[in-house]
Amino acid sequence: MTSKQPLDYSQDPKHDSSLLIVRKDAPFNAEPCPVDLVKNYITPEKYFFCRNHGPLPDIEEAEHTILVQGIGCDKPAYFNMKQIKQDYEKASVMMVMQCAGNRRDGLHKVKHTKGVIWGPGALGNAIYSGCRLRDILATVGVTTKIKNLNKLHVAFESVEQCEEDKCYGSSIPLSKALDEFGDVLLAYEMNYSTLTRDHGFPIRVVVPGYIGGRSVKFLKSITIQDYESMSYYQRRDYKILPESVSDEKQADAYWCKVPSIGEYNVQSYVCSPSDGIHGGAKPNQTVQGYALSGGGRCIQRVDVSGDDGKTWTTAQLHQPAAEGNNCRVWGWCLWSATVGTKKNVRIVSRAVDSSGNVQQEYPVWNYRGVMNNSWRTVDSNSMEMSNI
Amino acid sequence: MTSKQPLDYSQDPKHDSSLLIVRKDAPFNAEPCPVDLVKNYITPEKYFFCRNHGPLPDIEEAEHTILVQGIGCDKPAYFNMKQIKQDYEKASVMMVMQCAGNRRDGLHKVKHTKGVIWGPGALGNAIYSGCRLRDILATVGVTTKIKNLNKLHVAFESVEQCEEDKCYGSSIPLSKALDEFGDVLLAYEMNYSTLTRDHGFPIRVVVPGYIGGRSVKFLKSITIQDYESMSYYQRRDYKILPESVSDEKQADAYWCKVPSIGEYNVQSYVCSPSDGIHGGAKPNQTVQGYALSGGGRCIQRVDVSGDDGKTWTTAQLHQPAAEGNNCRVWGWCLWSATVGTKKNVRIVSRAVDSSGNVQQEYPVWNYRGVMNNSWRTVDSNSMEMSNI
Repeated sequence: MTSKQPLDYSQDPKHDSSLLIVRKDAPFNAEPCPVDLVKNYITPEKYFFCRNHGPLPDIEEAEHTILVQGIGCDKPAYFNMKQIKQDYEKASVMMVMQCAGNRRDGLHKVKHTKGVIWGPGALGNAIYSGCRLRDILATVGVTTKIKNLNKLHVAFESVEQCEEDKCYGSSIPLSKALDEFGDVLLAYEMNYSTLTRDHGFPIRVVVPGYIGGRSVKFLKSITIQDYESMSYYQRRDYKILPESVSDEKQADAYWCKVPSIGEYNVQSYVCSPSDGIHGGAKPNQTVQGYALSGGGRCIQRVDVSGDDGKTWTTAQLHQPAAEGNNCRVWGWCLWSATVGTKKNVRIVSRAVDSSGNVQQEYPVWNYRGVMNNSWRTVDSNSMEMSNI
Repeated sequence: MTSKQPLDYSQDPKHDSSLLIVRKDAPFNAEPCPVDLVKNYITPEKYFFCRNHGPLPDIEEAEHTILVQGIGCDKPAYFNMKQIKQDYEKASVMMVMQCAGNRRDGLHKVKHTKGVIWGPGALGNAIYSGCRLRDILATVGVTTKIKNLNKLHVAFESVEQCEEDKCYGSSIPLSKALDEFGDVLLAYEMNYSTLTRDHGFPIRVVVPGYIGGRSVKFLKSITIQDYESMSYYQRRDYKILPESVSDEKQADAYWCKVPSIGEYNVQSYVCSPSDGIHGGAKPNQTVQGYALSGGGRCIQRVDVSGDDGKTWTTAQLHQPAAEGNNCRVWGWCLWSATVGTKKNVRIVSRAVDSSGNVQQEYPVWNYRGVMNNSWRTVDSNSMEMSNI
């Protein structure tokens, strides 16, 4: 991190603090309560987590352009918002946006982790609309016929100035960008409304099935290159370090050896009852939660236990994104089950995705606290709300 | 299962029984010893598992044709082997072929499972060559422009007569077949030699990243349809039933409710030392094994423990399939590590794939004994070879 002027957060939008739990004021990071998350299959913006690395840009749409350049491009090209909206087919994709740090608090309880201490609400299921990235790339001459496709990356840069780097940046494999079934968009709408500043106005990348960190907001440039983005957020963040690496100094030697995260893993969480444990024995407790998996893998089963994993009940799944669709599924699954609960005994869930991956009981801790998908843990010494 | 004449196995090829462990004579099912599996990155045929559901067909290549028909096809078309070899570009793919029942024995120890009791050798890593399925489909007019693509399937039928159905059959989503990055082939070579009868001569499907059951051998027909294959092997087999379903009668009510398996899950196994446990304390025991994941996900880390999971060492990975390749990886990973071992204490491994999925310690049992990817279990009452 280079020394620089402190960033100015005075122009950030104001937020209704009754709807989201603020994890950090500046940059603004906030998530909904788990019980609010399972109220809607499509998450309304008011319950949608906000993830920022710096002050929110305030961009004039009419003046905004996106530069597209790099390997395979005929020449650098600028696209303005009018072109993007008028000259390219508008496509929509329903997908989960999930931060790699969702449920970091569960790992942070095991041992100190680095990052915003998210509970289980750093995700939401939205419908994004915009132009297809591969349509834009085709315009500049980049198609799947390009040489060495499986060694190339698409790097995105944001207008957003950041705490850890000059601007937010990230990259994805070019094959994901060009994949006919990859559904990567340059989105200008979320849930059929114009993007707000919180979510990247006027235009952002959305990369279905990948961690949210790759869906760069306030997009200003796209570069085809033969290496990953040089950004801090690609190179020194969002990686699953080995369990033995537990501080910044040890991490230094590992960032370049460990791959950056793309797709996320199988996940589920007990959102209701909100404390994940029941104060008294109840023979018919209704339990609700979410489940999802990365890379287009849908959820094939969620097991729910009211007795800390001794016995399991199969949940009812609500997963319209997967109905009559045997291709990739980017939307999440909401589920409910009725189980018997016991005083101070955990209620847990475990999801199985379409590839047979299952959540494990205990987390494998990592320094950055990413991709925690163990069974829900609760603070059994306390009956308070415990988003762990 | 309809009553029919017993099948005749008298014309099956003879096998050298010193190289493979025979799990069933008729149909012939056999797998290598785990220590032989990790000797080569590309598995030689002599160490390649054989999986059959009936007598092996003895087909005359010059007379063999494949029928292609169904939704979107201009008209039913027959392709002979000469056309397939001469008129279509020859492509090669290195991939793991893994039976969904690999490591069934680990689940069978928990409770009775139905199926061939495979150890950990029902997989191998091979190079298959042939024509691309999507090139054949393009010839008959089926491309990604087809209507309702995400509801369509490609069903394959085999010449192989089977015990449980009139012939072997299976299907995959049409989107997988047409995916430019899906690498589905109609293969006529394995490891640069003509396919043998054991592996589907003269031609078979190979579906990278999917369970072996979808890679239909002795291919005789391809049908585009709006439902999955009606075959026993698609509809009443190769599904992960809930833990509560433990016999044939209970299963009857579940087959139609549970999705068929496509991609396999994250997996690894301790192949050497072969007993997975060490008779005496050894400070520097070399441990070797394999790791893999489905759907093109590569392996990002393998942790190895000589003390039953108390402490972990990061293994050295040998995964040339993934080097310089950020697209899908179909080949496996061989790994080695040096750990301290203790008398009668388990040596275990856990792999993390590129999507952050991890193997769990305890298996979730299922009646068909499929997709077992828990840590290696050993029979601690016995120091004999225990392929569990």
